Amino acid sequence: MFRIVRVFTGRCGPCPCSFFMNLILLFSDDFTSADTVRLTGRRLTHVLEVLKPAAGDTLVVGREGGPFGQGLVREINGRALTLDVSWNVPPPPKLPVVLCVALMRPIVLKRVLLTAASLGVEEIILFHSRQVEKSFWQSTALRDDDIREQLVLGLEQAKDTVLPKVSFQKRFKPFVEDVLPGLMKDRAGIVADPSGEVVTRPEGAKTPLVLVIGPEGGFIPYEVEKFKAAGCRVVGLGPRILKVETAVVSLLAKLF
Amino acid sequence: MFRIVRVFTGRCGPCPCSFFMNLILLFSDDFTSADTVRLTGRRLTHVLEVLKPAAGDTLVVGREGGPFGQGLVREINGRALTLDVSWNVPPPPKLPVVLCVALMRPIVLKRVLLTAASLGVEEIILFHSRQVEKSFWQSTALRDDDIREQLVLGLEQAKDTVLPKVSFQKRFKPFVEDVLPGLMKDRAGIVADPSGEVVTRPEGAKTPLVLVIGPEGGFIPYEVEKFKAAGCRVVGLGPRILKVETAVVSLLAKLF
Repeated sequence: MFRIVRVFTGRCGPCPCSFFMNLILLFSDDFTSADTVRLTGRRLTHVLEVLKPAAGDTLVVGREGGPFGQGLVREINGRALTLDVSWNVPPPPKLPVVLCVALMRPIVLKRVLLTAASLGVEEIILFHSRQVEKSFWQSTALRDDDIREQLVLGLEQAKDTVLPKVSFQKRFKPFVEDVLPGLMKDRAGIVADPSGEVVTRPEGAKTPLVLVIGPEGGFIPYEVEKFKAAGCRVVGLGPRILKVETAVVSLLAKLF
Repeated sequence: MFRIVRVFTGRCGPCPCSFFMNLILLFSDDFTSADTVRLTGRRLTHVLEVLKPAAGDTLVVGREGGPFGQGLVREINGRALTLDVSWNVPPPPKLPVVLCVALMRPIVLKRVLLTAASLGVEEIILFHSRQVEKSFWQSTALRDDDIREQLVLGLEQAKDTVLPKVSFQKRFKPFVEDVLPGLMKDRAGIVADPSGEVVTRPEGAKTPLVLVIGPEGGFIPYEVEKFKAAGCRVVGLGPRILKVETAVVSLLAKLF
């Protein structure tokens, strides 16, 4: 009898943010044949340091955009981990939401990306607004690989395999006037602002939404008016001023 | 005409976590007379670096455990800030919840304390359970001053003045058998575990709760049974495995 190694029982010191890896996410580059993968780098380090499996043990794996399954350890050493993989569980459903967030400080951006991915957000749009510091758009945290890293960490945490789509809108007016109406053709628009009434009940888990959250300094009144003109409902979060990452989680929890 | 300095428009580089200070929280030690305070240290640095007020400007202040009001800048320089204060707004209501969280890694603990304080949690109990690393109880993040710092940052973020009470339960069984029943005399108990059904609707904002959240590795079945035996309802958060800080915000948002 071989043991099934529970992926979430260990803590990974060397990993970027000491996260818990609840599944090992596999990408097409990892496959050496239809049902064999070879892992190196961060995932190998995590497995060696935390899970310490032996040949014959089984790990939880997921295929990017596809199902979960088992990875039977064929060989493991300091250079590589070879797994024979098989699939049997579909990934959890995504939240039907396009999350539009004003660009934030790089450290906050990382947390928001990871958290939104872990919550199952389908699509993320980072946009510019008046109270966003222009320098944020120069951050290395916006590079494709850096964004992808946070999303992958979020999926590994939550046990999901489907990466959210991420895009940028560096100009406010074209975003609100040209992009938002397209998104709202088959979704209801909600913008968070202290001027709105508090969300008191879920909207029903099936309603696809566009959820717009402003920068830490808030929207200016002109911006709120533009969202209203585009057909968004304004909702508040009560008298407390929350951090962006807290507001994201709180609103998603209330709305779905 | 003097300007009112909006406290949340700036970012504070030197502050512990680049947070936004939406009010300046004042403590009894700060008062030099009934309506005059003198600030030094972190709050002075924040005001000098971010708000840069001149004598005659007004800042938003709050008195610990008391109301908000205005602080009229009488004098400011590199050594101290002197304000004439007056009060006129009560603090926002607290969430009627005792949040019991299994002790977590220090970096996560800091975020959970800050976030719980910002959300208005009334009381926080950090408890031990099987999957909590014993070394966590040695962390300097558990010192009174370190805990208080995170709580104050959370209140300053959220614009609240009432510090949550924080205590420790270092042994699981006495916590569940002796402490929890007392808390549940006038509160409903809820424990988060994947075995429970998903929370689908708010419980009504007025119901006082004891909300129990386990460690990142989860509760062991014995622990869940002990909570059930104490009268707690088990609720789940769906198929996704969330980080502790995300689970805290998500559950509080769904339940209140």
